[in-house]
Amino acid sequence: MALVCFPFKKERVPTVLRNVDIAVRHNCVDAVLLVGATKNECYRKIYAAIEAKNNSDQPYAKPVHILVQTRLATVLRPGKGDGMNTAMQFFLNAHEQPANHFTEPLKRLHFYDADIESFDHNWITKAEDGAALGYDVVRHYFPRSSTDAQVTWQVTKVGFALLWPRTTLPWVQQPLGGELCFTRRVVEALMAEPRVMQQSDWGIDTMYTFFCAQKGFSLLESYVPQGKMHALYGGLRDLKNMLCECFAAVQSLRHEPVSEEPTVHRIDPATPVPSCITEKIGYDIEKSMRLLREKWTARQKGLLELFPEKAKCGLLRASEWPEFMFMDEQCWVSAYKVLLDHFNVFDEDWRELIFKMWVARVLNYTMRHVTRGYHCALQANTEMVTRLHMRRTMELFEGKPMQPLDRKVSSGHLCTPESPPSPSSSWGIEPLQPLSPVTSYGRSER
Amino acid sequence: MALVCFPFKKERVPTVLRNVDIAVRHNCVDAVLLVGATKNECYRKIYAAIEAKNNSDQPYAKPVHILVQTRLATVLRPGKGDGMNTAMQFFLNAHEQPANHFTEPLKRLHFYDADIESFDHNWITKAEDGAALGYDVVRHYFPRSSTDAQVTWQVTKVGFALLWPRTTLPWVQQPLGGELCFTRRVVEALMAEPRVMQQSDWGIDTMYTFFCAQKGFSLLESYVPQGKMHALYGGLRDLKNMLCECFAAVQSLRHEPVSEEPTVHRIDPATPVPSCITEKIGYDIEKSMRLLREKWTARQKGLLELFPEKAKCGLLRASEWPEFMFMDEQCWVSAYKVLLDHFNVFDEDWRELIFKMWVARVLNYTMRHVTRGYHCALQANTEMVTRLHMRRTMELFEGKPMQPLDRKVSSGHLCTPESPPSPSSSWGIEPLQPLSPVTSYGRSER
Amino acid sequence: MALVCFPFKKERVPTVLRNVDIAVRHNCVDAVLLVGATKNECYRKIYAAIEAKNNSDQPYAKPVHILVQTRLATVLRPGKGDGMNTAMQFFLNAHEQPANHFTEPLKRLHFYDADIESFDHNWITKAEDGAALGYDVVRHYFPRSSTDAQVTWQVTKVGFALLWPRTTLPWVQQPLGGELCFTRRVVEALMAEPRVMQQSDWGIDTMYTFFCAQKGFSLLESYVPQGKMHALYGGLRDLKNMLCECFAAVQSLRHEPVSEEPTVHRIDPATPVPSCITEKIGYDIEKSMRLLREKWTARQKGLLELFPEKAKCGLLRASEWPEFMFMDEQCWVSAYKVLLDHFNVFDEDWRELIFKMWVARVLNYTMRHVTRGYHCALQANTEMVTRLHMRRTMELFEGKPMQPLDRKVSSGHLCTPESPPSPSSSWGIEPLQPLSPVTSYGRSER
Amino acid sequence: MALVCFPFKKERVPTVLRNVDIAVRHNCVDAVLLVGATKNECYRKIYAAIEAKNNSDQPYAKPVHILVQTRLATVLRPGKGDGMNTAMQFFLNAHEQPANHFTEPLKRLHFYDADIESFDHNWITKAEDGAALGYDVVRHYFPRSSTDAQVTWQVTKVGFALLWPRTTLPWVQQPLGGELCFTRRVVEALMAEPRVMQQSDWGIDTMYTFFCAQKGFSLLESYVPQGKMHALYGGLRDLKNMLCECFAAVQSLRHEPVSEEPTVHRIDPATPVPSCITEKIGYDIEKSMRLLREKWTARQKGLLELFPEKAKCGLLRASEWPEFMFMDEQCWVSAYKVLLDHFNVFDEDWRELIFKMWVARVLNYTMRHVTRGYHCALQANTEMVTRLHMRRTMELFEGKPMQPLDRKVSSGHLCTPESPPSPSSSWGIEPLQPLSPVTSYGRSER
Repeated sequence: MALVCFPFKKERVPTVLRNVDIAVRHNCVDAVLLVGATKNECYRKIYAAIEAKNNSDQPYAKPVHILVQTRLATVLRPGKGDGMNTAMQFFLNAHEQPANHFTEPLKRLHFYDADIESFDHNWITKAEDGAALGYDVVRHYFPRSSTDAQVTWQVTKVGFALLWPRTTLPWVQQPLGGELCFTRRVVEALMAEPRVMQQSDWGIDTMYTFFCAQKGFSLLESYVPQGKMHALYGGLRDLKNMLCECFAAVQSLRHEPVSEEPTVHRIDPATPVPSCITEKIGYDIEKSMRLLREKWTARQKGLLELFPEKAKCGLLRASEWPEFMFMDEQCWVSAYKVLLDHFNVFDEDWRELIFKMWVARVLNYTMRHVTRGYHCALQANTEMVTRLHMRRTMELFEGKPMQPLDRKVSSGHLCTPESPPSPSSSWGIEPLQPLSPVTSYGRSER
Repeated sequence: MALVCFPFKKERVPTVLRNVDIAVRHNCVDAVLLVGATKNECYRKIYAAIEAKNNSDQPYAKPVHILVQTRLATVLRPGKGDGMNTAMQFFLNAHEQPANHFTEPLKRLHFYDADIESFDHNWITKAEDGAALGYDVVRHYFPRSSTDAQVTWQVTKVGFALLWPRTTLPWVQQPLGGELCFTRRVVEALMAEPRVMQQSDWGIDTMYTFFCAQKGFSLLESYVPQGKMHALYGGLRDLKNMLCECFAAVQSLRHEPVSEEPTVHRIDPATPVPSCITEKIGYDIEKSMRLLREKWTARQKGLLELFPEKAKCGLLRASEWPEFMFMDEQCWVSAYKVLLDHFNVFDEDWRELIFKMWVARVLNYTMRHVTRGYHCALQANTEMVTRLHMRRTMELFEGKPMQPLDRKVSSGHLCTPESPPSPSSSWGIEPLQPLSPVTSYGRSER
Repeated sequence: MALVCFPFKKERVPTVLRNVDIAVRHNCVDAVLLVGATKNECYRKIYAAIEAKNNSDQPYAKPVHILVQTRLATVLRPGKGDGMNTAMQFFLNAHEQPANHFTEPLKRLHFYDADIESFDHNWITKAEDGAALGYDVVRHYFPRSSTDAQVTWQVTKVGFALLWPRTTLPWVQQPLGGELCFTRRVVEALMAEPRVMQQSDWGIDTMYTFFCAQKGFSLLESYVPQGKMHALYGGLRDLKNMLCECFAAVQSLRHEPVSEEPTVHRIDPATPVPSCITEKIGYDIEKSMRLLREKWTARQKGLLELFPEKAKCGLLRASEWPEFMFMDEQCWVSAYKVLLDHFNVFDEDWRELIFKMWVARVLNYTMRHVTRGYHCALQANTEMVTRLHMRRTMELFEGKPMQPLDRKVSSGHLCTPESPPSPSSSWGIEPLQPLSPVTSYGRSER
Repeated sequence: MALVCFPFKKERVPTVLRNVDIAVRHNCVDAVLLVGATKNECYRKIYAAIEAKNNSDQPYAKPVHILVQTRLATVLRPGKGDGMNTAMQFFLNAHEQPANHFTEPLKRLHFYDADIESFDHNWITKAEDGAALGYDVVRHYFPRSSTDAQVTWQVTKVGFALLWPRTTLPWVQQPLGGELCFTRRVVEALMAEPRVMQQSDWGIDTMYTFFCAQKGFSLLESYVPQGKMHALYGGLRDLKNMLCECFAAVQSLRHEPVSEEPTVHRIDPATPVPSCITEKIGYDIEKSMRLLREKWTARQKGLLELFPEKAKCGLLRASEWPEFMFMDEQCWVSAYKVLLDHFNVFDEDWRELIFKMWVARVLNYTMRHVTRGYHCALQANTEMVTRLHMRRTMELFEGKPMQPLDRKVSSGHLCTPESPPSPSSSWGIEPLQPLSPVTSYGRSER
């Protein structure tokens, strides 16, 4: 009893219809749901196509529903969050509507972006297989261009590593991925969580990932070797909203505790990355550099005073002639901490400031690592997060007995904080600036 | 308070001394222990070299102990197991010997093979870092030649996937690895386990891996990118003892339950494999083919009657002219199940029979997968284990409610066994022969 | 005024028709010619399809001719050579047949195998571009599976390196390739050569390559990155005819001189090989090993007496239990020299003997090099030929003044034979057995 | 009778001495020559070290000479050219100096940069092997970082392709390489060429390559798989002199004819590039971008009027905020042609202008191609040169009968210029702007 949902907004209609068709024909799928952002032209075209198909002599073999998303949240921008949450509501209650002809509650809810050109029946099969093995959540992950995924790496993964270093969160491969499968009890738990229902914007994926971890659901990350081919963004500017909303979602959770009790989290091994992905370049570098000098206001320059010298001066210089090498890992992390305390997602100056900082960070990463090749770049991302979560773990427990990471917490077998990793650590921990007191955020204060 | 132990038997002495030196100079290490298999020439040379060093004007800066291993077990062949267990005994009690000058109990015990030519201080640092992060066990893993590790893949990983498919065991990267670090409470727990102390042979690594999982210790697998360079075996014949003893260790555990409660198991991401490893070929193919016709006895041919037709006839034909393509994944798994029930490690005919079957299996794998390149070969290994643990999970719970894989076992949210993965599964599950009733082995009987 | 010819025998008809279509639609092509081996079913189907197309309301926009090949040779097996030579005859005379409506002599003749699934307009464009740049001959070359092309490497390239080491012949990438373009004057020169016209079998490609070099035609080798996908042979047995006929072609030329005057030979740089090619395995190893014990006769064993001990004894042992490691580079080269003197393509015992030796050589190469990865295997092939042509060059001029390799032969600047490459040569020259006197074959005797 | 010469200026002394030692111990080498740029500290240290060695009880086994370079040219900056030419003079006359104890004229002259850290005896052996095979010139080539070699690709190779497209010059792998071996008759021919002797600066390598081709010497390019590790330049600024002098050398030759008669040019096949080279990034991008706004003068802006709109406006805009995407292949080639006519190596404004254009070109290449991976970048370089030499060949003969590229020029078999490559050419010829009349430079005017 699986329902496959495709949220959509403005997509290539033939791709959407092709994907609906693949889902309908899969023998594990009982129904398909399309949730549109608004009743726009794309919506009308898809609606008409489905109608036509169902009135033809070869109608869909299974129900294909189409809805406009409900406004479920009250404060944040209505966006993908309202869409996915609308689908969850539909999923939970579908069997109570006689018109739907479902004889029992639906068991599994799949989400896939509607515009995936490389979508095929394997996405559904792998998710169903994982659910059949008993996993509460199956998330797809896949190879990505080395310049893609920079909201994931610089914002979500860095945030998870800083705030919940001893949990499974920093180990989730693609925490912002929108291709996943929830079992019914997961949907129930998420819908019971007001902060999920209120997250109507791009922050929704962060919320799903976070609360699944907090509630201890078991997770399988399943590998899709061909990757996710879909419409590309034009330049980094298109990502500003996503960046701000994803950061704000992490920020809103920063005082949330996550238990360190173990959860099941398994990762299907990856395979070599096809050259069409390693050779793709995700954004226009020259155009993106220009963002560093655009839309400055006096107030933005004032807000910069909250930041460490290096970030502040670097960004000011970059407004005159592009610089980005100042925004190294350490500079970004120190700025990130200030942002956690002060960022305001409703304030355009803050939005513009975090955006410029992130642009500098992405340029730094591109020039320093991407130019050295795909594997170097991916390794740089991975090592940044590993270093952070290690360093952060050490800090959190400095001077205090650290708890072993297992289910039977024993006493008396403390790891001594007095033997930190040697300076020439094999993990390559870069010297970080002295950190601000950990009491301002993070879980140690509780 | 870390102790680094190098078990040894007959090694290149300069390599051993070099490794001792690296350990002594590491600032996390308090003492080094060498455990020799017997008082052979190698032992005497190392002993003399340490004496000489300590009597020189530049003695070791820390204690370097050297012992001959104690006979701790009673039944199995005295081997590496006695050596490592001797080291564990020393570790636990060292602070009680005033001569040792340890002011408090030692906290961490590292093991490294004495003959690793690529050993450096990073191995120790990574293990200490992991322990400092709170992991009970840190295991090193590393890239290996595609023709190496065939006892691991065909014997240990296949066995773990068949017997404990829903646990963390099939996901352990290198379950036979001898480079690891235990915290004191792990050593205590292992020494309290009689079956560990009785495993005096090559089966010891299996025991350590198994009981750490059974007891729920948290595990970090730490990646060593340069790999483990060490003395090579001459041909597959050298591996017969190891094969038999590793299989027997799995077999002896086959009725042991392992809880499906989650444990912490994290895997440091791997990096691209250096070409010196991808281009290495691990054994002499022509010479190994000859093993298929050697040492046959009438009784071996009689024992073959216990096996399915395909394995039986294939092996008989191979005694006349080499064949190995019959020994595909399915044939090997079906033979493996017979071996689990009938193999006798003390019976030379059984030892020779499992050895020939394994040689055929390794040749099959080499000709079918290794010839297609390093990544194909590694992927074939990984997928074999993934398929097995998935198929086995499905079987174990056929017709019964399957438990979700999380810490709070809920009721009423069962995954329906009536929707198995579609035949054209994206996981590529090969059709397996009908399985013998699961009551004969495995954990479902309890 | 280009004619594209597809020789064919028994092919997948839709593939052939698709390729005809591509050729017809190319704006550099004036006509297409299909030459069938016999009037078999494949021929009739293609004939009918072309008729039908031409009688439809969308006929081919250009003439598409279909012929059965003429028997042009008298002694050798009628085969691909008759087919290609038939096409050359057609090409030369086509403008004299009023029915053909060619207003002037055709200028360029392209050949492509009819069964290439990866054929597209680029093959034609690249050849036409090369011809437009002034090259007499354009040959396509492409990446191939590491187990493919073993007639090319072990027979043709080894022969060229041994017999004409100082010419361009050992540097031709794919001397047996059937995808090429000749300008009219090349066709005229080849047709004037009786040995070309008599080479009615698989040896035709060798003849074309050889006489183009001997006559000093300029050559461009053009790279086709996607490779040549086509029907695969089942096992090495299928290649026996090709092997014998390609060897016999080289053998028949062994007393032919080739001038060392420079010719133009340029090689379009290759690009990284796609994984679908690096991961392909070309033949069935287990099945091929069986060839070593099949079809032995007493006379074959007698003929083995002509060969060096190592080859003779190795092959005899291999008839009882497969061996192949004896057939290393040096053993193969020494056997090759005996074959050059004694092989008789009309004698079945000789055919079977060269075949078994070659099977052993291919197995040796597969086990020693292919198992180490695609790049190792290709490099082993390349280095074998480089070593041979170097060593052979040295031998040919031992004790005699060597001529500089340029167009103005100067005197008095001799390279001293007394300073051979040092034993630990960077070219990795393996020690070769003392060679038989060079007077028996090769060009030095003239 | 080989002489190995190391030109040097200011190098790491131990590296130089190590390389001298390797050369002395090679059994093909008779003497070593060090040519210093000036009597600086480096010179004095090396001099002293050699003296000391020769006065020790283990003196060099062969003569090691050290000289300060002679001022041989009169106009151009004294530099590497004077150094190498000094070595050639020494080589030619060495046997006439009784003090040198050479009983006969030296036969081969090797050059190696003195600072190569990856130098070993194989460099010498490969060159000697090639010379023993009869090649007049052996040039070493090797894998290089994708951001290295941008004077070679953008200046020398582009120039060779534009000016002498039908000769061997555009096919020389590393025309600026300083690791090579000349036979005596080559040295004689080069020294007889006044333009070589006058090229005292960085242009010397261009001269050697050009005149060897013009005189028809046979060439082997020998591959050194480990690459050339040596001291790195700090940023692109360091390369300004080299850029200007290499361009001026090409420019000075632009009216020189090169015969299209074939010459022997063979290229030892390359092997996969080690990751230490693919992962190296050759220059500081952020620092290099700053060069675009530095050192502008009013006169430079005036000179820009000579250039096409796109280059002119792009460079002016880049002086205010960095741009480089305008400097694509076509823009660079059109600017190159203006530079060929107008550049003045003695005029600082011209030097600064060509430098800025080249910086923009290198940034364009880096952002567009290097970010997509090593192989993409190398392929982009190769294809740029291939496209140019093809397009240029077509242009040169437009409307005129084109000569076949072989040694027996035949008549009557013309390639028709009226069938140009199709627009969607498989060689990917980018549409080039209409070219300025070819009469202004290049060989067609003669």
